[in-house]
Amino acid sequence: MDVQPSSQQLTQVPPNTSINTAMGKASSADNSAAVELQPLDTDEAAGRVERSKWLLASADPPPPWQQLFSSIKESVLPHPNTKQHNRPNRLLTFLQSLFPVLKWGKNYKASMFKSDFLAGLTLASLCIPQSIGYANLAKMDPQYGLYTSVVPPLIYAVMGSSREIAIGPVAVVSLLLSAMVSKVVDPSADPTAYRMTIFTVTFFTGAFQALFGIFRLGFLVDFLSHAAIVGFMGGAAIVIGLQQLKGLLGITHFTSKTDVVSVLSAVVKALGQQWYPLNSVLGCSFLIFILITRFIGQRNKKLFWVAATAPLLSVIVSTLIVYLSNAEKHGIKIVKHLKGGLNPSSLHQLDLGGQHVGEAAKIGLICALIALTEAIAVGRSFASMKGYHLDGNKEMVAMGVMNLVGSLTSCYTATGSFSRTAVNYSAGCETVVSNIVMSVTVLICLLLFTKLLYYTPLAILASIILSALPGLIDLNEGYNIWKVDKLDFMVCIAAFFGVLFGSVEIGLLVAVVMSFGKVIVISIKPSTEVVGRVPGTDIFCNIMQYPIANKLSGVLITRITSATFCFANASFIRERILKIVEDENNIEEVAKGRLYVLILDMTNVMNIDTSGIHALGEVHKKLNARGLQLAVVNPKWQVITKMKAAKLIDKIGAEWVFLSIGDAVEASVRLKMNGLNSIVFN
Amino acid sequence: MDVQPSSQQLTQVPPNTSINTAMGKASSADNSAAVELQPLDTDEAAGRVERSKWLLASADPPPPWQQLFSSIKESVLPHPNTKQHNRPNRLLTFLQSLFPVLKWGKNYKASMFKSDFLAGLTLASLCIPQSIGYANLAKMDPQYGLYTSVVPPLIYAVMGSSREIAIGPVAVVSLLLSAMVSKVVDPSADPTAYRMTIFTVTFFTGAFQALFGIFRLGFLVDFLSHAAIVGFMGGAAIVIGLQQLKGLLGITHFTSKTDVVSVLSAVVKALGQQWYPLNSVLGCSFLIFILITRFIGQRNKKLFWVAATAPLLSVIVSTLIVYLSNAEKHGIKIVKHLKGGLNPSSLHQLDLGGQHVGEAAKIGLICALIALTEAIAVGRSFASMKGYHLDGNKEMVAMGVMNLVGSLTSCYTATGSFSRTAVNYSAGCETVVSNIVMSVTVLICLLLFTKLLYYTPLAILASIILSALPGLIDLNEGYNIWKVDKLDFMVCIAAFFGVLFGSVEIGLLVAVVMSFGKVIVISIKPSTEVVGRVPGTDIFCNIMQYPIANKLSGVLITRITSATFCFANASFIRERILKIVEDENNIEEVAKGRLYVLILDMTNVMNIDTSGIHALGEVHKKLNARGLQLAVVNPKWQVITKMKAAKLIDKIGAEWVFLSIGDAVEASVRLKMNGLNSIVFN
Repeated sequence: MDVQPSSQQLTQVPPNTSINTAMGKASSADNSAAVELQPLDTDEAAGRVERSKWLLASADPPPPWQQLFSSIKESVLPHPNTKQHNRPNRLLTFLQSLFPVLKWGKNYKASMFKSDFLAGLTLASLCIPQSIGYANLAKMDPQYGLYTSVVPPLIYAVMGSSREIAIGPVAVVSLLLSAMVSKVVDPSADPTAYRMTIFTVTFFTGAFQALFGIFRLGFLVDFLSHAAIVGFMGGAAIVIGLQQLKGLLGITHFTSKTDVVSVLSAVVKALGQQWYPLNSVLGCSFLIFILITRFIGQRNKKLFWVAATAPLLSVIVSTLIVYLSNAEKHGIKIVKHLKGGLNPSSLHQLDLGGQHVGEAAKIGLICALIALTEAIAVGRSFASMKGYHLDGNKEMVAMGVMNLVGSLTSCYTATGSFSRTAVNYSAGCETVVSNIVMSVTVLICLLLFTKLLYYTPLAILASIILSALPGLIDLNEGYNIWKVDKLDFMVCIAAFFGVLFGSVEIGLLVAVVMSFGKVIVISIKPSTEVVGRVPGTDIFCNIMQYPIANKLSGVLITRITSATFCFANASFIRERILKIVEDENNIEEVAKGRLYVLILDMTNVMNIDTSGIHALGEVHKKLNARGLQLAVVNPKWQVITKMKAAKLIDKIGAEWVFLSIGDAVEASVRLKMNGLNSIVFN
Repeated sequence: MDVQPSSQQLTQVPPNTSINTAMGKASSADNSAAVELQPLDTDEAAGRVERSKWLLASADPPPPWQQLFSSIKESVLPHPNTKQHNRPNRLLTFLQSLFPVLKWGKNYKASMFKSDFLAGLTLASLCIPQSIGYANLAKMDPQYGLYTSVVPPLIYAVMGSSREIAIGPVAVVSLLLSAMVSKVVDPSADPTAYRMTIFTVTFFTGAFQALFGIFRLGFLVDFLSHAAIVGFMGGAAIVIGLQQLKGLLGITHFTSKTDVVSVLSAVVKALGQQWYPLNSVLGCSFLIFILITRFIGQRNKKLFWVAATAPLLSVIVSTLIVYLSNAEKHGIKIVKHLKGGLNPSSLHQLDLGGQHVGEAAKIGLICALIALTEAIAVGRSFASMKGYHLDGNKEMVAMGVMNLVGSLTSCYTATGSFSRTAVNYSAGCETVVSNIVMSVTVLICLLLFTKLLYYTPLAILASIILSALPGLIDLNEGYNIWKVDKLDFMVCIAAFFGVLFGSVEIGLLVAVVMSFGKVIVISIKPSTEVVGRVPGTDIFCNIMQYPIANKLSGVLITRITSATFCFANASFIRERILKIVEDENNIEEVAKGRLYVLILDMTNVMNIDTSGIHALGEVHKKLNARGLQLAVVNPKWQVITKMKAAKLIDKIGAEWVFLSIGDAVEASVRLKMNGLNSIVFN
């Protein structure tokens, strides 16, 4: 114990050995019985007074606008680089941060390319049928899905920093687009206008994403809570699955609504009229095949490529079957039109001055958030597996540019796909080069093999989409949420049913409103707890949580556990505190002169407003009327400052503000020793 | 020191003399320099382990629905009467609680009646001109204002428990009614339908108020924050004042909108066309007279009756002037139609099945809340002056019944008036009997003197309303709010300008949305603080607030000061904690093996959701990757339960969860002694 005690401070504040010795012994065999308090020595009182002074003399906290400014600065401005660079280096650093390929490209090795090449091919084999299927879901011609798998992955490869993410069209965004744009433009009545609106929405999506990234508004993605995303994704997966009934049953006329009731009644209606069972037979048998290969892949991790290539194999085999058996003449619906060739320009198709531009911007904003939420969730989870960090804001810029360029090259909104990223990772990709390989493969397919896809049955595309859906329904996580937080589970379920029985937007709205509603309810929930001392320590705890903690006699100790003491809960909290005093036993104690101080621990009150200050003033007044003194413990920086500004400290008396419950208890004991008459009630 | 130590506990938990002695000495002369930590003895370690066990072994808190149920029970159900009553007494108690007159009536004395009689007369002299003026503001015929001052005060007198409140029509509710009902029915086009809608609204107002009282939903009134009310009232007062320009200038055609811009442009337009300056001369001179008498009343409290009777005197004198000079033929606008006689029934005028019933119910709800807010604020402030308690829920029932009966007897919405209650109090009222005296006086006036009011100039009514407005604009309170809470002041100003430049509803909406928005912003604001030890104690404080607190070396101690650790701030808080570690000095310390534990104080985290749990898990993972151990201190009941349910405690290690920062510091010292190699990173 060779510490040099601070002589300067020690003269003022002697070590609190004495108080703790006294308090440490002040425990009783019976926990429920209150403990008698003992007076303490004078040195300790000096220390306590000194500590109260520190509390009262603390300088004002930074004003709210400064806090606001610094928190905006912190979140919006890039973190300053601590190391100094000379000019060319700074440019290089900037370019490297914008195009991470400049950084990792230098160290790229042939051995890595081998892995990436194989992963890219595997990815392409899954991506081609999925892209066609998702284009179908988005009510676009099939080639647009393939286009979307060509340009965006190339852009992302030079700008993005995730190594595993697989870029392209995804199920949820495709559903979102078709559900929301269909309300603005009818795709069956005017497919060109519909396509133009989709490109415009994609343009806005990219613009919003890039802006979010540039202004470092990454936190916007956080406003969808984890539970809300789980519920939303689950609901969306079921809605997407229901949409596939069209292809799987070979129904011609289908509803444009997405809720369960509309879709199922449309299916029942269609089944009563005309449908082609052959489609279902074909679709279901290949669905079973794909699911079996998936099962094999999951059991034996080395055979994952069986699962990954099964969709392409299914497409090839089923196309051959249809081609050879002329099954399209027996009611099997086929892709038919699939325009080949390189992505055409869609610059002239952007409708930025049209009548739907406002709607398109709104849909673009929603798509931007959903696409980013999915991409960042996917990217982060794989980055943390491999142990590197993903900067959300940089990713947003990359995604934004990729969608902006995409909207000019006939692509619709692309993002990171859950299922394909997992395949990419399992296939052993090393860098984002696997995306380039995939993109080139899709391009080759577009240039050479589109004619071969003419006979591909739609039922197969439906079964490929269906097989990818279970990954979106995370029952396990739903169960975890239920176990950990029942209210969160409510949010999850609300988002799920909102998507299922309302629409995609209603589901999202419900999720966001409920998430924030939960924050309000939790924040304003008035709550106080009775506090007792943990025997052998100077720690004061909730006696419900710690039955071992003892109540002390002569003082009532209560703690406000609402974080905000504001208009919405001030009168509740006031009533709760007064109710503790009005408790029959306590009234008796007060009457007998045994109870004379109510210690109010404000440690947990992070913020107080004028209503809270009023309520606290009233508590003080009413306690005084009963002959009780109010002692305030550890008001936080914001709180003590406001109490001082409102002159509440003057009313309560500066000598009744303490840094710790222990100090307040000790002062109460001293008060009892000196006799109650010495209290000046002001 | 004659305390009996609990032998049973003391064997497990030795008094913590040693730790505090060591810690008490562990302060240094230089506050900024970190303090070296010293290992402690074995007994103390046993105590610490024991305390951690209590924390980890705490039973589950009551589930959320039980909390919800008990908080509903607490707020909705009446508090059980602890004393047992036999049956007839219980009935009497119930009746007494419903009709407080049964209780205080028994003790009513002749001497009290003398005071009440004088106060009632003074009240009536103010009430008669105000009632006519407010009826004018509500776009009703003047007698309806007088009706409203007859029936509601009588009902309140038998059911209410405030002794000072003066019941009748008030400015803000009159404005609210005319502004909102005018949008549904045009009062100039169809005055009968307008009146019917007003009565229907009053019926709904009463019904809602009574229901709020019966279901003990008194807290709904709290959802308008104090700051919002101050701003709203100030804005409403100015809007009401602007409305009086019509009467004061003698303008015939006026706008039905209430915002400043519309009203002022209507005034300018009218001034360009035709207006009668004589109205202004008459109005302004009497306004000056009333304001002078008020000034005299304020300077000399005994002369308050001069101020109180000045309005009636003005009415009498100005009526005489107009009558004698035939001034109505020179453009002076007069009341003209004032139907005398007892309140007629308005049962057949209630339009409960009509097309506007939905609108009426909505307006009724808003009026119910505003009227209650005003009445309860007035009632409570005078009750607290005289030192008695006012039960908000009972008051609501009384107000509700009074408005329900009022809507059947040609009254519009009545509530407690700010200005008249103050007059009642100054006039020395003893009980609510002064309201009965006032009501009877108004009734006599209705029966006998209405013909005399035929010549009363409208400009006088306008000046009487104008003279009552300054009481609604509480600049002083606005300044106090500014001093105490800048954000609250923003809410106040927003409500003020919302009413002024938007409409009454917009002002209210802005106030409510901003009040709750503030709660959200404060609750999710991510914040952490660096914590140091207050020398000579085992108290750990924010080193910004308490510059005297010392950082300790070898450990980083940080505290989460956001009350909710949820989806909206989880990633921010995670980044903040990690940034502390990534601080250059700290990285160096870690590299040199001098820094090995990050102590995270969670005392202030009241609630955590699944996103928060995830973020905490990631912090643990990333710290481990850097070779640092995470120690969690004092997670609250809800938090520790969720951490256990999410198996996060297993990941962090149960031995790294502590009840106090002191315990965590001590465990860190022990870790250093035993060497870092003994940490098992899991």
